[in-house]
Formats: sequence, C-alpha cells, structure tokens
Amino acid sequence: MGKGDDWEAMLAVALEEAKAGLAEGGIPIGAALFDAKGKCLGRGHNRRVQDDDPSMHAETAAFKNAGRQKTYRDKIMVTTLAPCWYCSGLIKQFQIGTVVVGEARTFQGGVEWLRQQEVRIVEMDSTECAELLGKFIAENPKLWHEDIGEL
Amino acid sequence: MGKGDDWEAMLAVALEEAKAGLAEGGIPIGAALFDAKGKCLGRGHNRRVQDDDPSMHAETAAFKNAGRQKTYRDKIMVTTLAPCWYCSGLIKQFQIGTVVVGEARTFQGGVEWLRQQEVRIVEMDSTECAELLGKFIAENPKLWHEDIGEL
Repeated sequence: MGKGDDWEAMLAVALEEAKAGLAEGGIPIGAALFDAKGKCLGRGHNRRVQDDDPSMHAETAAFKNAGRQKTYRDKIMVTTLAPCWYCSGLIKQFQIGTVVVGEARTFQGGVEWLRQQEVRIVEMDSTECAELLGKFIAENPKLWHEDIGEL
Repeated sequence: MGKGDDWEAMLAVALEEAKAGLAEGGIPIGAALFDAKGKCLGRGHNRRVQDDDPSMHAETAAFKNAGRQKTYRDKIMVTTLAPCWYCSGLIKQFQIGTVVVGEARTFQGGVEWLRQQEVRIVEMDSTECAELLGKFIAENPKLWHEDIGEL
C-alpha cells in the first residue's frame, strides 16, 4: 500500500496492467482505482482483443474490478492514457475526484472537459506510457482506431 | 427482425430487458443495440445488484453483448431511461448515430449534450418506462442513488 499522493507508484500499477495487456496480445492501456490512502481497490486493462469485448477499456475494467463503492469523490483513477469520452463520462457520472493521466500525447479524450468540471487532473506526461502505446499503434493502427470508434 | 425505424418495437425489447432485471431483483433499466435494418445486435440490463458490478449499466451491457462492430454511426441504441453521463460518453466516443430514449422524466443524464453533438435523439416519453423505474426508486432509493453516483 502506497501513500495517497504517490502518483508515480500508482502509475506504475497502471503500467503493469498495460504491459500485461500487451503480453496477452491486447491494446496496452492500463488503469487502477485507488482510495484516498493509496490502497488499490481495483486494476485492469483494455480487453477488446482478449475477450472480444469493446466495453472493457482500462478504466472501466479497473472500475468494475474495484466493485461497488459508497462514494468515488475521494477516489483516484490512474490510467496510462488520457481517458476517452466513454471513460470520461464514467469519471463524471461517479464523481471520481482525481484522475492521474499517464500521458495525453497520443490522445486527449475528455481531459479538458473533466478539468472544467472540477475533476482534479494530474498529468504525468510519461514517455514510457506514450512509447508503449505509440509502438503498438504504429504496428496495429486498425485495432487502435476500432478502440476509439474511428474506423 | 423489425424495421430500422420501428422505435416502438425496439423500445419493447429494452423494456423486456428492464423487466428481466426487475425479476432478478435488479434496477429495472434495459437497453438494446440495433443495426440500421432494425436487427438486434445485443441487449442487456443493469447488473449492479445481480453481479455486484457497477460497470454494467443497461447501455454498456447491450454494447458489450453486441460484440465488436466496425462502425456505430448507423447503429441505434435504445434504452428505457435517458443515458447517464457514463453511457452518454460511450455513445459519443463510438459515434452511435441514433439514441431512442424510453423516458427522461426520472433522469435527464447527457441527453441535451448528445443532441448538441449531432446524435439523433428520439424521445418516446413512455409512461410504462417511467412508472417501472419510478416504483423501483420509491422502494429502493439508496440503490438508485448508488447507481448514479449520488450517495
């Protein structure tokens, strides 16, 4: 268990998930949901390829795996990539208080929209996150475009 | 298989799902995804109670059950209740072209936001949908508030 503001340690968990997804042949995006004390409640990665499941983005997988929570206002969603609109909608609806974004170079999603709505955004601008996904996209452009509905 | 603009027939499928959820002790919200010819690709209902799964709203369940699709621009999402922000984000990200809303009396979610983004919204204003969910909420207010992140 880490501390509630050790963003690097939290991002490391999301990155482990992204790498696990890659090892399974999937799109390497990972996420995890933490409580205010830095305890990991749930973690997961994109499962489009592995399960033929378009609904399991990294953030929704982490949210699902964390199970039912009384409130999300004090929770922290950490993700290797800026959340898409689907995952940004999740964050807004459940009022997740803080989002730690591994990188927003590849894709910006709903980050600015969330910021306007008083979600605390912590941008890590991680080269490791960007390179991991960037290499995958260069090799699998169709899968990436399918995952963001741009086919 | 119905026709691609027989909204009543499509809503009937979503309502069947909502009632199936209620019979399982769950929150009675149902949805289905149709193609442009009115063929049902996937259907589902809220599974928070049944599976202890906060990620399975009616729309995300229908989207998941429809499997991977090349494009969603010609697809129709039918739901007994106006989509929440989570499900509205799903609709925006995957550019689902049409959303048939059973009712928006109980909850408006992201309907206006979707309309501004050129999603075609068909409002059915169904009393049956509103009464089914309204009765459940009156009896289970905590579950409802948990489901929309308002606890």
